[in-house]
Amino acid sequence: MKLAVVGVGLIGGSIGLAARQRLGATVSGFDPESANLERALELKAIDSAATDVATAVDGAEVVFCATPVGALPDVVSAALNATDEGAVVTDVGSTKRELVDELAASEHGQRFIGGHPLAGAETAGVENARAELLEGARWYLTPTDRSSGILYDRLQRVIGGLGARPQAIDAATHDRVMATVSHLPHVIANVLVREAALGLGGETERLPEVGTSFRDTTRVAGANPAIWGDIFATNRGAVVEGIEAVIDRLGEAAALIRAGDPGAVAAWHAAAGEDRRRLLEAGGPGGERRELRIVVENRPGTVAEIALALGREQVNIEDMALQAAADMRTGAISIWVAGDAEADRAAATIRELGHTVTVVPGAGG
Amino acid sequence: MKLAVVGVGLIGGSIGLAARQRLGATVSGFDPESANLERALELKAIDSAATDVATAVDGAEVVFCATPVGALPDVVSAALNATDEGAVVTDVGSTKRELVDELAASEHGQRFIGGHPLAGAETAGVENARAELLEGARWYLTPTDRSSGILYDRLQRVIGGLGARPQAIDAATHDRVMATVSHLPHVIANVLVREAALGLGGETERLPEVGTSFRDTTRVAGANPAIWGDIFATNRGAVVEGIEAVIDRLGEAAALIRAGDPGAVAAWHAAAGEDRRRLLEAGGPGGERRELRIVVENRPGTVAEIALALGREQVNIEDMALQAAADMRTGAISIWVAGDAEADRAAATIRELGHTVTVVPGAGG
Repeated sequence: MKLAVVGVGLIGGSIGLAARQRLGATVSGFDPESANLERALELKAIDSAATDVATAVDGAEVVFCATPVGALPDVVSAALNATDEGAVVTDVGSTKRELVDELAASEHGQRFIGGHPLAGAETAGVENARAELLEGARWYLTPTDRSSGILYDRLQRVIGGLGARPQAIDAATHDRVMATVSHLPHVIANVLVREAALGLGGETERLPEVGTSFRDTTRVAGANPAIWGDIFATNRGAVVEGIEAVIDRLGEAAALIRAGDPGAVAAWHAAAGEDRRRLLEAGGPGGERRELRIVVENRPGTVAEIALALGREQVNIEDMALQAAADMRTGAISIWVAGDAEADRAAATIRELGHTVTVVPGAGG
Repeated sequence: MKLAVVGVGLIGGSIGLAARQRLGATVSGFDPESANLERALELKAIDSAATDVATAVDGAEVVFCATPVGALPDVVSAALNATDEGAVVTDVGSTKRELVDELAASEHGQRFIGGHPLAGAETAGVENARAELLEGARWYLTPTDRSSGILYDRLQRVIGGLGARPQAIDAATHDRVMATVSHLPHVIANVLVREAALGLGGETERLPEVGTSFRDTTRVAGANPAIWGDIFATNRGAVVEGIEAVIDRLGEAAALIRAGDPGAVAAWHAAAGEDRRRLLEAGGPGGERRELRIVVENRPGTVAEIALALGREQVNIEDMALQAAADMRTGAISIWVAGDAEADRAAATIRELGHTVTVVPGAGG
């Protein structure tokens, strides 16, 4: 099988590696940055490096376009124009509706099928590419009523062969879901930071040491501006709708808080905790995520000691957060594990090390 | 010196321990939960357990009221009524203006000085009390123009003696700062969760695996409803003002995104990243926090290996986050350290272990 990858960064490189290792495919690659292309060849993410899109996709049965979102319209069109009836062209962009609408209406509507693997947000660059990145990852595909059934079937089989889990979704629904779970959190983080920067202005040059709520809530503020400019621009309809819904809900929250009834506010607050647990944690392998809080004295050594002990007991740490005390020498560690049984086992292990540990009642990660 | 602590949970217990160990004070304690009181005595957080507030505060030079915010008005009044001219009474509540306004106007206006140590949010209960919790912690004090200078001086010297760093702040300013950096992030987390729960309703029972932005942004949603009902109720003015400011800024963001100019959106996004860095990281010991991202294969063992190696090199891990890949066996670790030099040293150490590590350009924790 011959595949082509246009844009050999983290995702494109990982597709190439998985296709070569798991499918025995021959992978041709192109990247506008020749250094990326050379490195992809060295890392054996591609079999051959082409000098342009047309050469890369020549004879390919499946073409993966893995460039930044802003470059996709041109790259996908070039790939479609340089291939014939037998080739399916897909992309890996974070937004789908705009691109899919444009191409579904074109002469190539049968052969372009949008895609979005949920993987790799944490790093970038072909250096970090690895076949395992895609293993078990949800990979959304957005066929339309013009899509060729044969080509869709080929595409989803290849993606399954890469180790990922393909799932069809309407492009508009995809963009709305992503707006809610990914794009809106970024907007909100930006807005909260800006409010703190302007609102506190004269009062404090630096935030007081107030624990992790501001830090957590704004962690994604300003991440990768170049990428996010494109994502917001290509999903502006759903993102603006989401912002407007959040504005409405903030208005409701303000009215509730202004009314000043601690019981009603506590009930609203508790309901949010329940919602979050249900959204994030129900149905996962091993049961609901449980949080363990450990007070520690010397973090570098203690983190290692705890992680080693849990590793020996085969307890899988799903998430971990360090919370420094003001002296930067003491603090607390939160560890999340799956299920009550795992939490109890982890707590016992940590107590044997002599630490004080609390399994947080019903609080999720 | 004789001190009294009313409410011997995490903070009250830690005050007792620090006062006994560092100041050689005699500490009398009271708690409405007799089990807490007994445990505090066993842990040597107090010298004696009183049966009511009046007995506990009898003869004390400084009285610390460390109950939940909702109980403070009654507890503080009881302490003031049971002490004479020579005793200063303070509290450790997360909100200040409402309580301070009420008491400053009372007959005890000279002797009540509000307080708020920034410590201990991560755990609760006297079991977790420790003298070190207060070491280096910012401890806000909110004197008014009616406060006794002699008593304020005594109070701030005792707090310094506990190892904390007292700082005077106007009660209204305190509440506005806390609204921005702590209370608003909680409101926003709740609202975002609610929007996801209602907005996605029929489309998905569980959120797709979309990385950590939703998880981080909503981490504090629904935490400790009982405490937060009181906090929102007693700081409703500043919180509602903050919500209204955020609503305005969300409206601006919606207009910007709706206009669809990727460059303008990217600039807004980048400015938020700059603001956050300035607010959280400038001026800290060792320079700006830097993030290192490491791709790992087996988390339990690898976390320990990396933490041990950094510990050997005396690199202090300021924060850490694990990002699981979909297969739950591979993933990425983000580690934050202070300053470029520390980041370079940490990166070299981690590379020697054979891992791929990226020092994130200009991205904070």
